[in-house]
Amino acid sequence: MSETVRHFQADLELLKTRLLEMGGLAEERVRTVVDALVNGDREAVNRVLEGDRAINQLHIEIDNRCFTLLALHQPMAVDLRAIVSAVKINTDLERVGDLAVNIAEAVVRYMRNPPVKELIDIPRMASIAQSMLRDALDAYVRRDTALAQSVLDCDDELDALKTQVFRELLTYMLQDPTTIEPALDLILISRHLERIGDHATNIAEDVIFMVLAKDVRHHAGEPGV
Amino acid sequence: MSETVRHFQADLELLKTRLLEMGGLAEERVRTVVDALVNGDREAVNRVLEGDRAINQLHIEIDNRCFTLLALHQPMAVDLRAIVSAVKINTDLERVGDLAVNIAEAVVRYMRNPPVKELIDIPRMASIAQSMLRDALDAYVRRDTALAQSVLDCDDELDALKTQVFRELLTYMLQDPTTIEPALDLILISRHLERIGDHATNIAEDVIFMVLAKDVRHHAGEPGV
Repeated sequence: MSETVRHFQADLELLKTRLLEMGGLAEERVRTVVDALVNGDREAVNRVLEGDRAINQLHIEIDNRCFTLLALHQPMAVDLRAIVSAVKINTDLERVGDLAVNIAEAVVRYMRNPPVKELIDIPRMASIAQSMLRDALDAYVRRDTALAQSVLDCDDELDALKTQVFRELLTYMLQDPTTIEPALDLILISRHLERIGDHATNIAEDVIFMVLAKDVRHHAGEPGV
Repeated sequence: MSETVRHFQADLELLKTRLLEMGGLAEERVRTVVDALVNGDREAVNRVLEGDRAINQLHIEIDNRCFTLLALHQPMAVDLRAIVSAVKINTDLERVGDLAVNIAEAVVRYMRNPPVKELIDIPRMASIAQSMLRDALDAYVRRDTALAQSVLDCDDELDALKTQVFRELLTYMLQDPTTIEPALDLILISRHLERIGDHATNIAEDVIFMVLAKDVRHHAGEPGV
């Protein structure tokens, strides 16, 4: 292995490490805000609302690393796809961080009213979305298409929970108009969690494309890879 | 200008044309579904729900063009950023197409009930989101950072309309529980339109980064470029 190739591989490894770090931070913010919702912990919500310099800085650093790798090493095939995927994954992770803020805003409003119900499905949605995110990033790092496919499969579960949350809260709203405002916030929170799952799905699709150079995005209804 | 450079520039132009085409298709779907909501045109909603092979095919074609350009020409600086941006913009546009489907699903539900109110703000949100999208793509093609900045400025307007729609519909829901279900759908539709604006914003940020190699994404509160 030449010195240049060794250097390239080391930089690529560092890029992966940074993406995992970023994923960890984004996931942590989602966990914090949903725990805060369940426990009525206003202080923890505020921490999420204050934003996250660490994520923003990593976002810029990762983008820079990708462009440097592309410009200096002119990678081909799977390496080229891995770096372009990293740019996209970086964007997805940043959006997950933003969605944690959107959830926090809804939690603040939700806390102004008495709780509508004991929360069961929303924490479950959060935990599914978080593990999808973790698995999608692991799949990227290990170039593991089977793991990526398993992330795609989880999306249906999240979708079903979202529909269930919607129907249940609609029943509350129809029976008791005082629940309309807080129930609306819970519906919005469940939508934000669904979108976090969508970002994990995007990452998983990028992994499959990166490894197999095969586009799995427009084959709804066809057998998966 | 060498033959290779000429070839590269021609391919880059073709890539821009394709992105504009894709943007046009995505915008058209948004227009169709919101017009259908206003006019109660179920048939037009169905056309959007049937999906759009043309967008999906263009999505794959544009991605392929980008990877070919990166691999064959090893572009540098602004050209490199332009091509990586194209990969991201392509994803944004595909999501806009998906959001038109999400809107169509809510419109189908909405049509099952009597209309809540005359729709004014939602068509306005749609027209703002569409022009943001158009301007963001024009800014990309012309590498025009001033136009890109104007797209970023429009986002506040869209955000204010979303909040206004939410408050107004909440009032309806609280006054008359029979409006709860259709009002909820209108709230979700306004959120989808806001997300279309977010995608236009993403594209505008990519344009500024592409031209100036300057990251405008994490400077909230600082003066714009």
